[in-house]
Amino acid sequence: LHNLEKIEYKPVSVKEVLTEMKDLSEIMLDLAYSAVLFHSVELAEEVLELEERIDTLSYLLDMSIMLAARDAEDAEALAGIATVAAATNEISDAAADIASLVLQEIGLHSVIREAFQKIEERLMRTEIKSGSLLDRKKIGELELAANIGVDIIAIRRGKEWIIDPELKEEIMEGDFLIVRGAPLGIQKLRDIASGKTRTFDRGD
Amino acid sequence: LHNLEKIEYKPVSVKEVLTEMKDLSEIMLDLAYSAVLFHSVELAEEVLELEERIDTLSYLLDMSIMLAARDAEDAEALAGIATVAAATNEISDAAADIASLVLQEIGLHSVIREAFQKIEERLMRTEIKSGSLLDRKKIGELELAANIGVDIIAIRRGKEWIIDPELKEEIMEGDFLIVRGAPLGIQKLRDIASGKTRTFDRGD
Repeated sequence: LHNLEKIEYKPVSVKEVLTEMKDLSEIMLDLAYSAVLFHSVELAEEVLELEERIDTLSYLLDMSIMLAARDAEDAEALAGIATVAAATNEISDAAADIASLVLQEIGLHSVIREAFQKIEERLMRTEIKSGSLLDRKKIGELELAANIGVDIIAIRRGKEWIIDPELKEEIMEGDFLIVRGAPLGIQKLRDIASGKTRTFDRGD
Repeated sequence: LHNLEKIEYKPVSVKEVLTEMKDLSEIMLDLAYSAVLFHSVELAEEVLELEERIDTLSYLLDMSIMLAARDAEDAEALAGIATVAAATNEISDAAADIASLVLQEIGLHSVIREAFQKIEERLMRTEIKSGSLLDRKKIGELELAANIGVDIIAIRRGKEWIIDPELKEEIMEGDFLIVRGAPLGIQKLRDIASGKTRTFDRGD
């Protein structure tokens, strides 16, 4: 990830920025739901920070699009990209609004928890216990998506959050994982994280 | 689904409407991505219709919330519900904007397809061929989420679209399914839909 804290224009790759905005907006929505489901103030704050990052990316992308348009044909082709970028921005705003609920002093209405029921089936938070098969494994070598149909979307390590961790990231005892996927897969991962299950074998 | 085409206020269950808005907004986003990935004008039009439905639900919900608030404490608790409803509305607007790209005359820029690469791994369209294990099966009896970690989010039958089909819906030869889930699971479902694979056995 690039450091974009000082917003000054430098040429960016439209493709890279649009892809990052797209992926980030998707993950932000699941992180915002997770913040509500697991009452996590820290996770909610992470979502708000990501929202600022999307705003910055959006600004840089808009400038690159303008500079790339040299004639009407270019402009027409680039308008679609601007539309997708604006849509990811809307999604990230929605995610930030949902995450903000956790930061308010008032409790969450039971109706909200009930509306989140379907989401609860595909999102889970779990801690890596001593002796777990996952301890000191790189995310890439686990092939979780292929093996049990789940993704690790965030790791909390002490006070630090690692959002959308890379394949080379090593999981450690004491980490809290936020995981999304098929209900059976997340149940399986919970058992592996706790050390109860010592195999990825799907033949259960 | 209720018929809400004539918008006149009648008391609605806040819980039911919020849940429907929430579920619908999630599915709309995946349907909008599918419309782009599979160049489906009809699916894009379905997304725009769903967006109108969300607008109607949003209007009814806002009224119910106002009527339910009798004192400041009520109002505080209900404000969170209004925030979630507004967020689902934003998500559905974003989905409609993305779907609209398919309805424009101009072609999609290659950068958009590339940004959608991760989405492409978890969304698939497939046709039910003669002799498929899925032919004349009710969705509920297949337990696709539990068996192979995938969901059927829409069915196209002739000119008709069935969005977020119920468990009692029967799949028929010639149906096109839009499916989302883990990459291995959607590959498996493709083989079952085509008749190439005759079992849900995961031990492959």
